[in-house]
Amino acid sequence: MRASLFYFYQLVIFYEFLLVLMELLLSHRSIRKYLAKGIDDDILNEILECGIRGSNTGNMQLYSIIVTRDSNKKELLAPFHFNQPMVKNAPLVLTICFDINRFSKWCLLNNTKTDFSNLLWLLTGAVDASILSQNICIAAENYGLGICYLGTVLYNAPEISEILNLPSGVIPITSITMGYPDLVPEITDRLPLNSVVHFEEYDDYSDDRIYTAYSEKENLESSKQFILENCKENLAQVYAEVRYKSADNRYFSEKLSKMLIDQGFVF
Amino acid sequence: MRASLFYFYQLVIFYEFLLVLMELLLSHRSIRKYLAKGIDDDILNEILECGIRGSNTGNMQLYSIIVTRDSNKKELLAPFHFNQPMVKNAPLVLTICFDINRFSKWCLLNNTKTDFSNLLWLLTGAVDASILSQNICIAAENYGLGICYLGTVLYNAPEISEILNLPSGVIPITSITMGYPDLVPEITDRLPLNSVVHFEEYDDYSDDRIYTAYSEKENLESSKQFILENCKENLAQVYAEVRYKSADNRYFSEKLSKMLIDQGFVF
Repeated sequence: MRASLFYFYQLVIFYEFLLVLMELLLSHRSIRKYLAKGIDDDILNEILECGIRGSNTGNMQLYSIIVTRDSNKKELLAPFHFNQPMVKNAPLVLTICFDINRFSKWCLLNNTKTDFSNLLWLLTGAVDASILSQNICIAAENYGLGICYLGTVLYNAPEISEILNLPSGVIPITSITMGYPDLVPEITDRLPLNSVVHFEEYDDYSDDRIYTAYSEKENLESSKQFILENCKENLAQVYAEVRYKSADNRYFSEKLSKMLIDQGFVF
Repeated sequence: MRASLFYFYQLVIFYEFLLVLMELLLSHRSIRKYLAKGIDDDILNEILECGIRGSNTGNMQLYSIIVTRDSNKKELLAPFHFNQPMVKNAPLVLTICFDINRFSKWCLLNNTKTDFSNLLWLLTGAVDASILSQNICIAAENYGLGICYLGTVLYNAPEISEILNLPSGVIPITSITMGYPDLVPEITDRLPLNSVVHFEEYDDYSDDRIYTAYSEKENLESSKQFILENCKENLAQVYAEVRYKSADNRYFSEKLSKMLIDQGFVF
């Protein structure tokens, strides 16, 4: 009787572990305001170690992590992240890069050479760098830290590369700010799961299915506010004509392409 | 006295939760052999829900997940994943795509249009798709499942797109096989953490630092075996001249570029 109670408790504890991690993943929110408290070196090392334990192509680890703690560096980076306040406010900014420089150097020392400067490997590298990043984020959140991704690193990759002294073959892919949360916002909405999942084949969207998928999002108070503030008729227009308008997309994409082509990338 | 013991236990349990998740991240290995047991719909749903809770650019969710369970479909996919046995052996294959089709349709229904067919957004989409994927993988591992990434999806994106009936604007970024592990391999090596992390600025590698970074990897028994089997002088040559040789990299990259350019992408 005693033994079965013991196993029952074990099962309960095992199940609780499972739930705690699911809860961690399900309750993620981006943290944009941090306490002044820094992050211990030991904790940072542990978090980064979780990062590099993630899957990566051929175990070649074609990535590098740049840690920014220095406030002068953060000051320099901030405008190229469009002055999002968390860049200066966070104790830590990580810039995760696709890195073919280190691997190429190793090859050259071994009388051989690689050729990864193309679209296939840039995308492969972006996937590996992001797996690394997400492991870092989850490990950080497990330590009670908050994170926020900065997609802006791709908009201003040339300038950010210069600030971080990145050599040719090291391309910033994503950035993360990290610190102890000062303000934990409400969880943000997501489309219903069944509107982003397809079974066996892509089931292309009828107009009705699009309306259903986006109706909850469109009816949020925050969306209505967003439409008002931007003097638009609907939420889609705010996205397409204000936040991510064509001219900007094209301008920043061309800047990124130019940097990569200058480094010998082939598309 | 009793109360302090209670808090002490709470602290121990909290600390154990922390360690269990760190252990999960630190002990990741790719699983390539699976039991025949399928994955419950409830568990799959929970795992996918963890996926979409991850960060994504502008909360636009420019991604779709294609779930393959049908063995005929797996049979069709397998050759384009170079017949890696886990494609047919796993109960589940997920193909994670960058998806601008759904969002564009929503915009059109709202009298506006988007323009994401460029390098900047392809990379942004690859980051978001990978954050989604890695959340899915960690949630799956938390349920005792094993996963293996298939980078091959980018090599044969046109053929895989046809099998999965992906419309224009839906680009496969990464694939994952998933199932209950039949064989759990040894954990694989990684470069020392300090050889992939840079503080404040990229500290470019001297020859000595390269030798130090790669020495453990070069001295593994598996590496020596690898060199022998491939009749090469060293491990770098196996990577650069056998596994990821220039001609292949170029061929598959051009195929990928062509598919994207045909869909209107600008580089």
